[in-house]
Amino acid sequence: MRLLVRHPSVTLEKITSRSEAGNAVAELFPNLRGQVDLCFSEPSADSYHDCDLVFFATPNTTAMSQAESLLEAGVRVIDLAADFRIKHIPTWEKWYGATHACPALVEEAVYGLPELNREQIRGARLVANPGCYPTSVILGLLPLLANQLIEPGSIIADCKSGTSGAGRKASVGSAFCEVTESVKAYAVQGHRHLPEIREVLQTLDAGVDLVFTPHLMPMIRGIHSTIYADARGDADQVQSLFEDYYRDEPFVDVMPAGSHPETRSVRGANICRLAVHYLDAAKKFVVLSVEDNLVKGAAGQAIQNMNLMFGFDETAGLEAPGMMP
Amino acid sequence: MRLLVRHPSVTLEKITSRSEAGNAVAELFPNLRGQVDLCFSEPSADSYHDCDLVFFATPNTTAMSQAESLLEAGVRVIDLAADFRIKHIPTWEKWYGATHACPALVEEAVYGLPELNREQIRGARLVANPGCYPTSVILGLLPLLANQLIEPGSIIADCKSGTSGAGRKASVGSAFCEVTESVKAYAVQGHRHLPEIREVLQTLDAGVDLVFTPHLMPMIRGIHSTIYADARGDADQVQSLFEDYYRDEPFVDVMPAGSHPETRSVRGANICRLAVHYLDAAKKFVVLSVEDNLVKGAAGQAIQNMNLMFGFDETAGLEAPGMMP
Amino acid sequence: MRLLVRHPSVTLEKITSRSEAGNAVAELFPNLRGQVDLCFSEPSADSYHDCDLVFFATPNTTAMSQAESLLEAGVRVIDLAADFRIKHIPTWEKWYGATHACPALVEEAVYGLPELNREQIRGARLVANPGCYPTSVILGLLPLLANQLIEPGSIIADCKSGTSGAGRKASVGSAFCEVTESVKAYAVQGHRHLPEIREVLQTLDAGVDLVFTPHLMPMIRGIHSTIYADARGDADQVQSLFEDYYRDEPFVDVMPAGSHPETRSVRGANICRLAVHYLDAAKKFVVLSVEDNLVKGAAGQAIQNMNLMFGFDETAGLEAPGMMP
Amino acid sequence: MRLLVRHPSVTLEKITSRSEAGNAVAELFPNLRGQVDLCFSEPSADSYHDCDLVFFATPNTTAMSQAESLLEAGVRVIDLAADFRIKHIPTWEKWYGATHACPALVEEAVYGLPELNREQIRGARLVANPGCYPTSVILGLLPLLANQLIEPGSIIADCKSGTSGAGRKASVGSAFCEVTESVKAYAVQGHRHLPEIREVLQTLDAGVDLVFTPHLMPMIRGIHSTIYADARGDADQVQSLFEDYYRDEPFVDVMPAGSHPETRSVRGANICRLAVHYLDAAKKFVVLSVEDNLVKGAAGQAIQNMNLMFGFDETAGLEAPGMMP
Repeated sequence: MRLLVRHPSVTLEKITSRSEAGNAVAELFPNLRGQVDLCFSEPSADSYHDCDLVFFATPNTTAMSQAESLLEAGVRVIDLAADFRIKHIPTWEKWYGATHACPALVEEAVYGLPELNREQIRGARLVANPGCYPTSVILGLLPLLANQLIEPGSIIADCKSGTSGAGRKASVGSAFCEVTESVKAYAVQGHRHLPEIREVLQTLDAGVDLVFTPHLMPMIRGIHSTIYADARGDADQVQSLFEDYYRDEPFVDVMPAGSHPETRSVRGANICRLAVHYLDAAKKFVVLSVEDNLVKGAAGQAIQNMNLMFGFDETAGLEAPGMMP
Repeated sequence: MRLLVRHPSVTLEKITSRSEAGNAVAELFPNLRGQVDLCFSEPSADSYHDCDLVFFATPNTTAMSQAESLLEAGVRVIDLAADFRIKHIPTWEKWYGATHACPALVEEAVYGLPELNREQIRGARLVANPGCYPTSVILGLLPLLANQLIEPGSIIADCKSGTSGAGRKASVGSAFCEVTESVKAYAVQGHRHLPEIREVLQTLDAGVDLVFTPHLMPMIRGIHSTIYADARGDADQVQSLFEDYYRDEPFVDVMPAGSHPETRSVRGANICRLAVHYLDAAKKFVVLSVEDNLVKGAAGQAIQNMNLMFGFDETAGLEAPGMMP
Repeated sequence: MRLLVRHPSVTLEKITSRSEAGNAVAELFPNLRGQVDLCFSEPSADSYHDCDLVFFATPNTTAMSQAESLLEAGVRVIDLAADFRIKHIPTWEKWYGATHACPALVEEAVYGLPELNREQIRGARLVANPGCYPTSVILGLLPLLANQLIEPGSIIADCKSGTSGAGRKASVGSAFCEVTESVKAYAVQGHRHLPEIREVLQTLDAGVDLVFTPHLMPMIRGIHSTIYADARGDADQVQSLFEDYYRDEPFVDVMPAGSHPETRSVRGANICRLAVHYLDAAKKFVVLSVEDNLVKGAAGQAIQNMNLMFGFDETAGLEAPGMMP
Repeated sequence: MRLLVRHPSVTLEKITSRSEAGNAVAELFPNLRGQVDLCFSEPSADSYHDCDLVFFATPNTTAMSQAESLLEAGVRVIDLAADFRIKHIPTWEKWYGATHACPALVEEAVYGLPELNREQIRGARLVANPGCYPTSVILGLLPLLANQLIEPGSIIADCKSGTSGAGRKASVGSAFCEVTESVKAYAVQGHRHLPEIREVLQTLDAGVDLVFTPHLMPMIRGIHSTIYADARGDADQVQSLFEDYYRDEPFVDVMPAGSHPETRSVRGANICRLAVHYLDAAKKFVVLSVEDNLVKGAAGQAIQNMNLMFGFDETAGLEAPGMMP
């Protein structure tokens, strides 16, 4: 909503929430006082039929039960949850612990990473907005895989995320006193974003496999992925290969050789900022990839997808630089 | 710069810095990569003569030595430091420990608080941008003083500020390990913003005096002023008086009765958000006033002043809501 | 528990919790791995009868229903909640929204502020451990009231607290993303610690009244109280009066004139650190009072009370300095 | 000093500092008010000759110029800097950019990791206290290397550290506004702790090599090392091998299988807490290792070494649990 209210071609028509129905949006989000006058309304089967687009920022398994009727009514859909991200249904069902309600739509859905699928997104009725970790990891690896520079089975993604990725909810584990001044890994044995990353990367190289370790950081926004992979052949050109690969991308920024991007440099901005290092002795690449998990890792990317789907300027509503300090 | 790059009527022509001359702006502020291509240049006497406006975001006593020649060259000036904020020269000289270089310009300068001096700002050549604490405290008191609702000598302003107010510099006291997870008061015996607040408020009521206690908070941005004053007469209408007083102000938001504004609701936004409480038993008002010290408390207000001076829409470049979370 | 495990004269016998019964204490508090081998057990009527002392660190209204039977069984009690803090039953019932279960014990209970009630605590069967804000405010005012240096009706206590005061629970308002990088006031119209502070201070001067405004800070531990009061008569000796008043107190530290104590200087320590300022022009005192709300404001003070009740060295288990940084 | 003041067998005799000479220690460290009465004194050649032990908590290259005369005077030395950590002098000189002043003492010095060199430490005159990252990484790998469970050239140590590791100094990069709410990698191309880790581990297996990537976290204390290595042979027993390996170690805590240690669980404590995971599909171990970089990663370990050198109980002064929250 923060980004949509300043978008030149968007009008917010309704915002639904069962638990908040009747309350003003600006009560829950006081930063939107004077910007959004809507109240939350009850979601109902046909309540979005006069909209052009519905964003699902809902728990997993919500969108899959409603997408079909929306699409039939001519409403396009971007799902920010995971219902349409994984093509292989048994894999999805295993990791999400549910039976998929509409496998046919999974096949139709486009994985909404513009740097990979821009053309398909333009024509899509249904876009699966990528996960926050997958966006960060995949963008860091695309130039390496596209140029066959790495052993595809050697990837380790050590990822550090701010706590806003967990959503706004009451839980002891999200409490300030639990999170601040501490770091921990979680889900070392397996996180739902692992099969998503793997499946997407395997479209580039069937041999891709990876270890993925998420960590919780004492900060609100930001993901920092540190990605290791064994080099295959010559690494001399890697800096210019990265620069070339992303030269025309409005939202991927390749830093100069030797750089160390900071997550705060993309705070609030729809940017993924990359640095690629080659370790000569170890013959390994280390890619550093930062994004704001709520923007390029979620809502900003969803707007970028919307811009493509509706023929708007791809950068509309997304031009503001990150907020430092 | 973060705000100016998105302003529809502004072009950044030069940015000067002795210590950073020759370096790219985006090196120091990586959030501006791809947004600002300038390098810092050496400041020099006539280097700004082709500009329409110069912002001084410099240490105190810098602007006063350069303003005269700029104004003579037809360049308008907004000083974000304190050189032109206090009209009474001996007071300024006492608190800033220097002889004032151009008292005549102090007389001409307009104190750039649009809610108080909008019409004078429109015509001004030289604007003294208010201090961060003064903006927050004065806006919290204007409706009370304008309506003679308080004993003017009874004011206590207990103010809490993030650490970005101290600027970007190397000092032990600003280090993360010194600041985080701690709160302290400072300058209890007297802070330079005290005479500034007092002088401005005395233009409304000559009897104004106040105690002002600044505190350092473990956060980047935000000022929360808690302002106490003894009520004079009837307090029944205070909520509607506040709402009426600020009804047409684009950047002051009076919250509903009983509210407690949070600094994060104005993070990055040019908003001062107010709540007024009346304590019946104590016959005191408690005004809660929050702002982002770097925006409504500094750069955003400077742009608001620029908009007025140049006849732009007052809200141009300043419409974005605060960033939550 | 962190403090008790190192106490030379204490053995932890049981720790009860309905929701955690059966779980190891060290699972919930991994810092205690290897230090506490107990599991949480179900609370039951007679389960503590073989203990010498029971600490209630429970929600309000729990201790008042169990204290009587414990005392009858010869078990002494320290309540860290509010059930026995306020002597005036109708006041307690109004602020806590409940009928008091044992008014007679309220009369017997000793308010456990050793600096005020050391001798009564020594003999007490039942101690009401003070609230975190009251400890900080009362200790800041005792020397002024004892020496009749202030107008007792002029007190304003502007208090800033870390978030650990809210306890360890699942709530949206306590979430990291809600709390960090923000400051807000709360309960401006009235907080339960107000009647507690007022009643205790009125035992020193019947005319005491105060305004009390709590604020939430983005940090775990620490309370910083900034206390304003109008001076009555001569203020020249205030520094030495403070030093004399607290000369023999092991846990109150009066800083040199002109100081600004930081909450981090008492992190983890059972210390209240004070600085007193006199503002000549305003004829007001400003007292700065810092403590760790979980130690001198809660558990540490409870152990100090235990030490007095059982004839241990008053400082036993409480000697460790604060942790900086 | 925080730990030494509570140590039963230690008296602080002098604390030297050129820049702070004459100032009270408690002025710089207000948490030590009432605990340490010393003033800083000028360091001088013979000023420590009546001490039994000198700790050097100085910049690199300081200790190496003074150690010889101290040892000759019968004073034992623990260097918390890096002068005696690396046996191979050319490696040290390359990474530290200086000519070593006393190579002979390097040979004599014992690397002060008790879990590796306990017996040599007992008799040592000169102990090189390990670096913070090396302690965390080496302790995480010892059981794997000792049992030949990993390919020694496959190690990746992705390490996350709080900012206190940088010391207390004035620098823009350490400022609160630069560090908080952000994560970044640094020294990806090579950090001084890399040769230290490598050399120590090669004493266990000559084939050891590793990639080491340090990251800066927005917190004061704590290191979280996430260590990856390819398994060699069967991994079934790894949990019990870890438990057996560290069974008698007072300051290494192996968590139950499947755990994710948090840095806050060791805040202020001399503990390294480990969890070992085996990823079946990838045939990799992931070891999670947390410590307080200022305690087990520096001062606490130095005291542990002192205890061994002087025949005190190894845990003396180090028994306090971590501070949570």
